[in-house]
Amino acid sequence: MSLDAAVVGASGFAGGECLRLLADHPKFDLVQATSRRYERRAVGYVHPNLRDLDLTFTDPDDLESVDALFTATPHGVSMGRIDDFRDAADLVVDLSADFRLRDPAAYDTYYDGHERPELLDEAVYGLPELSRDELPGATLVASGGCNATVTILGLLPLVEAGLLTPDDRAVVDVKVGSSEGGASGSRAAAHPERSGVVRPYAPTRHRHQAEIVQALGCDPAFTVHAVDMVRGAAATSHLFPAADVDKPALWRAFRETYADEPFVRLLGGSGGVYRYPEPKAVAGTNLVEIAFEVDPDHGRVVVFSAIDNVMKGAAGQAVHAANVALGLEETAGLTFRGLHPVGAP
Amino acid sequence: MSLDAAVVGASGFAGGECLRLLADHPKFDLVQATSRRYERRAVGYVHPNLRDLDLTFTDPDDLESVDALFTATPHGVSMGRIDDFRDAADLVVDLSADFRLRDPAAYDTYYDGHERPELLDEAVYGLPELSRDELPGATLVASGGCNATVTILGLLPLVEAGLLTPDDRAVVDVKVGSSEGGASGSRAAAHPERSGVVRPYAPTRHRHQAEIVQALGCDPAFTVHAVDMVRGAAATSHLFPAADVDKPALWRAFRETYADEPFVRLLGGSGGVYRYPEPKAVAGTNLVEIAFEVDPDHGRVVVFSAIDNVMKGAAGQAVHAANVALGLEETAGLTFRGLHPVGAP
Amino acid sequence: MSLDAAVVGASGFAGGECLRLLADHPKFDLVQATSRRYERRAVGYVHPNLRDLDLTFTDPDDLESVDALFTATPHGVSMGRIDDFRDAADLVVDLSADFRLRDPAAYDTYYDGHERPELLDEAVYGLPELSRDELPGATLVASGGCNATVTILGLLPLVEAGLLTPDDRAVVDVKVGSSEGGASGSRAAAHPERSGVVRPYAPTRHRHQAEIVQALGCDPAFTVHAVDMVRGAAATSHLFPAADVDKPALWRAFRETYADEPFVRLLGGSGGVYRYPEPKAVAGTNLVEIAFEVDPDHGRVVVFSAIDNVMKGAAGQAVHAANVALGLEETAGLTFRGLHPVGAP
Amino acid sequence: MSLDAAVVGASGFAGGECLRLLADHPKFDLVQATSRRYERRAVGYVHPNLRDLDLTFTDPDDLESVDALFTATPHGVSMGRIDDFRDAADLVVDLSADFRLRDPAAYDTYYDGHERPELLDEAVYGLPELSRDELPGATLVASGGCNATVTILGLLPLVEAGLLTPDDRAVVDVKVGSSEGGASGSRAAAHPERSGVVRPYAPTRHRHQAEIVQALGCDPAFTVHAVDMVRGAAATSHLFPAADVDKPALWRAFRETYADEPFVRLLGGSGGVYRYPEPKAVAGTNLVEIAFEVDPDHGRVVVFSAIDNVMKGAAGQAVHAANVALGLEETAGLTFRGLHPVGAP
Repeated sequence: MSLDAAVVGASGFAGGECLRLLADHPKFDLVQATSRRYERRAVGYVHPNLRDLDLTFTDPDDLESVDALFTATPHGVSMGRIDDFRDAADLVVDLSADFRLRDPAAYDTYYDGHERPELLDEAVYGLPELSRDELPGATLVASGGCNATVTILGLLPLVEAGLLTPDDRAVVDVKVGSSEGGASGSRAAAHPERSGVVRPYAPTRHRHQAEIVQALGCDPAFTVHAVDMVRGAAATSHLFPAADVDKPALWRAFRETYADEPFVRLLGGSGGVYRYPEPKAVAGTNLVEIAFEVDPDHGRVVVFSAIDNVMKGAAGQAVHAANVALGLEETAGLTFRGLHPVGAP
Repeated sequence: MSLDAAVVGASGFAGGECLRLLADHPKFDLVQATSRRYERRAVGYVHPNLRDLDLTFTDPDDLESVDALFTATPHGVSMGRIDDFRDAADLVVDLSADFRLRDPAAYDTYYDGHERPELLDEAVYGLPELSRDELPGATLVASGGCNATVTILGLLPLVEAGLLTPDDRAVVDVKVGSSEGGASGSRAAAHPERSGVVRPYAPTRHRHQAEIVQALGCDPAFTVHAVDMVRGAAATSHLFPAADVDKPALWRAFRETYADEPFVRLLGGSGGVYRYPEPKAVAGTNLVEIAFEVDPDHGRVVVFSAIDNVMKGAAGQAVHAANVALGLEETAGLTFRGLHPVGAP
Repeated sequence: MSLDAAVVGASGFAGGECLRLLADHPKFDLVQATSRRYERRAVGYVHPNLRDLDLTFTDPDDLESVDALFTATPHGVSMGRIDDFRDAADLVVDLSADFRLRDPAAYDTYYDGHERPELLDEAVYGLPELSRDELPGATLVASGGCNATVTILGLLPLVEAGLLTPDDRAVVDVKVGSSEGGASGSRAAAHPERSGVVRPYAPTRHRHQAEIVQALGCDPAFTVHAVDMVRGAAATSHLFPAADVDKPALWRAFRETYADEPFVRLLGGSGGVYRYPEPKAVAGTNLVEIAFEVDPDHGRVVVFSAIDNVMKGAAGQAVHAANVALGLEETAGLTFRGLHPVGAP
Repeated sequence: MSLDAAVVGASGFAGGECLRLLADHPKFDLVQATSRRYERRAVGYVHPNLRDLDLTFTDPDDLESVDALFTATPHGVSMGRIDDFRDAADLVVDLSADFRLRDPAAYDTYYDGHERPELLDEAVYGLPELSRDELPGATLVASGGCNATVTILGLLPLVEAGLLTPDDRAVVDVKVGSSEGGASGSRAAAHPERSGVVRPYAPTRHRHQAEIVQALGCDPAFTVHAVDMVRGAAATSHLFPAADVDKPALWRAFRETYADEPFVRLLGGSGGVYRYPEPKAVAGTNLVEIAFEVDPDHGRVVVFSAIDNVMKGAAGQAVHAANVALGLEETAGLTFRGLHPVGAP
């Protein structure tokens, strides 16, 4: 028995990745892909890896009835169309920021307010490592932001173990690829300007900060840089725990939190070129890689975490959440292990 | 029922890709990976995408008995060890150049002679689009070279249709990624020197020319350039057929040769960013993309073909050939459709 | 004594490069830079290498009177405003295609016709290696196209020596960087889509073909590919001369044509990583590098030529032409020798 | 009147950049370049931007007598040959780490001890922004490390203004290009492995930390990442001053320290694509770009600084120091302003 799935906003990068995952998913039948701009074009016109799919973009106003609807529209669209989405599907997984925050006031601070604040309590944050217990049976899932995801996954075990508290100072320095900026062109995103950059953006008050605070209950200082890759987000978290922390305590914390997690890979001490987490080592996968070091000279713990922002940071997380919400095998459709060598994927 | 498989020379790029494909192959059990240099290291030490595999490099002199052995050693090694390889396995698929050419004299010209010329007749060239009928039951398969593969696949239909004859002039201008140079370091391969290049190498008498001549029976002028990507080989073939050729005739030729080919994708007239074959659109896949244009001003046909050199040009082709040789589903283990967006994979 | 210079269309890549060259030129005073879009912004707002310049974009309709005006507007603009330009300056060097072709019919074929065909005879093609004798005293100079420039410079000596005639077959396969596409954003030019490409465009009937035919009197088949770099154009020319040609004859031809050329660098036989011409070896410079090989198996000569498309292919050529036209030192302002190492400049 | 200069270790990246700067320097005559490996080769064999130089690598044991000797050998070499170097030249500018630290014990901690500790007091640290007053007349100058340079220049004004004290917590997160690893090949440096990385190295106890502590008197936590560019080092410094700090106070601090510095560029509030410091905006130049933001939510100041590691972080700094030491114009030979657009230089 299979379930019908559709994607709204399917011409973008995250939407296209949903299409790819659903097309090859053992339990889903992909029945619809919408795009206002590319209506009546084959999905392969935009996404060359989907050239073999016999599927054409349709009008986003004509939604088919499906079991699961993945919505990958720009921020602000879903909150306006959420009733249509929920009419069309038993489960809506929204990849935008519209339902990620439980506190409506946070939308006033970080975005432009919220049209449907009464739904915020109902939505489940879609990162299974954080909210696995709330996902089964959920009907509205808010898939997490990529920079928030890579940060939360690096820090969650320390928070759970009491090694990172709201009173502890922490700095998170994130490096991300150009796919985060989405599929539209701008002068800043043009290849001549975007190649080879180490470009700070939103050095303070990045929107994903709100998700981090909500998830962890503490508020690290957070700065994001664009670097020269397409897929990938890597977080280097510098923590200064009040208590003395040694490596065994850290290993215990990470192992306890992630004991049975199918998509978390803890790295330690292996040496070699890829001894630390590396976005390119997880490109195309739903994995997060995590490692840490202790810096006794500064009372510092450094945590490295890396994901593919289009996968674990968007479409992979969304499908993972849907798998959990619908009682499917967690890893269904998400088993690709990545490539080696790979350049700047 | 599954078959045992092993990889010799498994720390290199092509060998590592064989490991990846075999580890996830529905019909093979991967039982051994050899590497003299990395003996006793986990395969994930070298190949980060294989960190989850519980497999350690072993001494290449201690081969287990398997159904299929994939050998990815430098040119010249296999011909010296071929008896060991065939003792260990019913089917040997060699990814080096050692058994690709049927004529021993060609080894004198393009390489340094051949130690076991009596085996050359027995070996089957491993490109299924070319030699599918000879593969079933073969015990020694010589997987083709990447630059030869991308060239042959672009030109084969024209040869079969009589549109390209030995008397016709043709130029093949190939652009390849850095993974072709293999996993070892050299100053020319170092990132600062290799980044951003358009670097001619072997402008004349490239070794893969011998395979092209053997496969097609004609001898195009052939020049290879390194460009800034890691995976990928793209051939632009400029042909000047003696006879008048129009697009319908070309479409007939390509469709006839590739009517039932699962890994050949003919592109035509779609428009969009990816209207022509693109190495990055097939990265990680076993696909070849092909398109063509007619240039009436010069009596020229231009054929574009693109592959992933590590896949269709090496490990993917080898597994494909093994699938055919062993009577398995042709596409088994080779269904990954690639990523979009993807940078310089 | 110095001359006043100005740049129209100064926010684009070629216009910005003109600003850079003129700002540091020993004989020019840069007095105006126009940009409709960025009017009243400092030039450094767009071009970070010009942050130190105390110069602000002005309205292109208010031109100051100068000795030399460099116009770097999109094709079609200059022909409409040429009277204004010539009113404002004794010498106009136009970097667009508007005055490159002497035959008005060629504009009908390759562009959209021409508004001021009577000026075509008057304009001097701006590539000094080709038209040095016509430049002194010229008042309207048409700076050549980048792909045409790299092709013409590679083939000119062979034409002059009679080694390449209109009856000989030739294929020119060009690889170019993303700056050729200009400063505006589009989906195809966006970093995620443009990274890592080997992308054919205009496989036949590229507009620069008209310039090549005009300059050389022969018509090679010509195909251009985008590859992953920002600056650079490399041409691989495959020639099949009717007469037997050996290396000494080729050396004689190249040396004779380029005996005293300050910006032509012939490479031969040196070995090493950079034994052949390489766009990144000339990035930022006004140089062209050229090398060749003879392929006796195919009766072929292969010529490699490489330039920086923004410099020798645009702004550097324009300043060089102005130097010659105005009787200045030829190399004035054009002596930067490039960087090593350099990535993908 | 001009001064004779020579470069030891001239086949490496920093040594090659010294050659380039000295070859075009208005006051120096470049008379010798040594390289054991490339002895008797033209310098252009290794450095393609120097193909026009009539200069051949010579045996490093046969040093000519010069006014200024630039030594760019691997760490540990200079301390063994320093007497030879000083015999050969009135001024030795050493680009290695051998004479950077005044405290011999620091060499025990960060390196492998020191052979000539008695010289450490005599050597002058070569960063003019820090030690301009000590440079005139110096005979042994120790040019600073690239990661240290970019960090020190970002933080020095805050230390001088008392806004960053040894008791204040600070995190410096550095991103660097592949040229930092030098010209030799290794598997980690090979293009397929090095492309597209965000790779932590030396997450704690990086050797450049010793220079930072010595220069600033405070000890920020310091972590370095390799990213995909060739030239460039960018530091993001996250500071948590004990005292309240506002933007005017920060501007005062930066302006006071750098009031007359020819190579420091403070960026503020301009907007545009390049609103923050960017390694690619200073590639090929001796500039450092600096900007800052205040994060009131976390009591944090974020400082961004960016340099070209081969220039301001090595050869440019060395020539700048020599200019000051010898009483020449400070900016002599260092006026190149960089390119726009530029990819990943």
